[in-house]
Amino acid sequence: MKSSYLLLLAFSTIATAYQTLDPLVLPRPLILEYPPGDDQIFHSDVGKEEVQLRCASWRFAGEANNLAPWKTVPADCGAYVKDYMTGKAYRFDLEMVADEAAAYARSVSLAGDCMDAWVFDVDETLLSNLPYYADHGYGLEVFSSHEFDKWVDKAMAPAIQSSLKLYEEILRLGFKIFLLTGRTEGQKIVTMENLKKVGFRDWKQLILRGVNDHGRTATMYKSEKRSEIVANGYRILGNSGDQWSDLLGSSMGNRSFKLPNPMYYIP
Amino acid sequence: MKSSYLLLLAFSTIATAYQTLDPLVLPRPLILEYPPGDDQIFHSDVGKEEVQLRCASWRFAGEANNLAPWKTVPADCGAYVKDYMTGKAYRFDLEMVADEAAAYARSVSLAGDCMDAWVFDVDETLLSNLPYYADHGYGLEVFSSHEFDKWVDKAMAPAIQSSLKLYEEILRLGFKIFLLTGRTEGQKIVTMENLKKVGFRDWKQLILRGVNDHGRTATMYKSEKRSEIVANGYRILGNSGDQWSDLLGSSMGNRSFKLPNPMYYIP
Repeated sequence: MKSSYLLLLAFSTIATAYQTLDPLVLPRPLILEYPPGDDQIFHSDVGKEEVQLRCASWRFAGEANNLAPWKTVPADCGAYVKDYMTGKAYRFDLEMVADEAAAYARSVSLAGDCMDAWVFDVDETLLSNLPYYADHGYGLEVFSSHEFDKWVDKAMAPAIQSSLKLYEEILRLGFKIFLLTGRTEGQKIVTMENLKKVGFRDWKQLILRGVNDHGRTATMYKSEKRSEIVANGYRILGNSGDQWSDLLGSSMGNRSFKLPNPMYYIP
Repeated sequence: MKSSYLLLLAFSTIATAYQTLDPLVLPRPLILEYPPGDDQIFHSDVGKEEVQLRCASWRFAGEANNLAPWKTVPADCGAYVKDYMTGKAYRFDLEMVADEAAAYARSVSLAGDCMDAWVFDVDETLLSNLPYYADHGYGLEVFSSHEFDKWVDKAMAPAIQSSLKLYEEILRLGFKIFLLTGRTEGQKIVTMENLKKVGFRDWKQLILRGVNDHGRTATMYKSEKRSEIVANGYRILGNSGDQWSDLLGSSMGNRSFKLPNPMYYIP
């Protein structure tokens, strides 16, 4: 029997494949009517598999910095992102990046003057806010700084274990560690408390957003702070962050490591 | 029954998870002995699922530019990469990137002086060499320029359909298109023949490696050529390529789009 199917999908690509040549900006829910076709091609299992693959494409596009700025996870990828974040895949991805970073760190020769530096972002790089995002749809909800700040004040974020192991190795190798976070100066005490409680130690400097940094993009703010680190004589050999805005801009350092994060985007 | 399992794996991450705290550089085959454990945890299906997830992590790490230079796909990811390249996932990933690029291209205002430019790489960006790589292990074999050149001379590479559609839209919007390829001047005629045969047309310039460009990295060669484009008065608004060496360096343009490619790496 020939029939058509309605499917709520967030992907312009499906629109272009089945309906029109006019792609749309993501994320944007679409109601699509599949053209009449063979039931075996369009039955619901294939629909589900396609959604999974489209969501994987969306996640890939984010990791490769191909996406335009976005505010929430596409509606139809909520379950996909939750599964990713709570299953093995996220942990394996984190471990892979940490291992690459550690291999690189061991491969470089330090000058021995204590001026070789590694920059780490904090949230979703050293500390995991997964308990918070579990209560807020894993990125399906629009970010609320008010709600998030309440979570930060609890100083209860667990360490990302692969990052903690990397951090220890970076320290052992003799790097000076700079923590460069989008958190504000007002959150300094709780941030230090949280970091120490879960095992991070001996950083050279924890840099937070001051009053003059509010309203600036993370790319601008972090570039300027990295430039100050360099101006103080340090050589940034490595930089780890879960956002491209942690890694791009000026004073980028010799090599960057992008940790996975499909839950939110910071420009 | 308690038992241990031998598994040939290419991942340092598995080594770190189960055996040692000393991560290793990828790609590097390891023989791992799983610790004694519950059969339900370590039976062969879980092993297979873990390999799939580790290979996905490896692919992700490549797309996010986290990997050190590599010469071949990790031995245990051969089947994974083949499945990815020949199934829907690769096509969906390509479509997602093309749609994002098209949405961006439509969003920018062209100056109307015919100096707004878009740069495209050729191999695995406009043309697909999948028929060649299907005969050469989808990246498992070490790249042979001698063998590959014979394939190029046939001028038989099909178009990547989503890229052809994007290309047409970019043209329609009024961009000047520059093709910037790692192919050599000696391959100019067959490359033009191949491109035209599958539907690409009206490029402003096809730039190939000259005798002075041999032995230089793609990043250096392509940066210099982009700088020449800019020196000639063009504004590079978009840049599409499947390698990070197509996109990074100088004169990077306003926005870049990284197409997926887990089969090979060009520095």
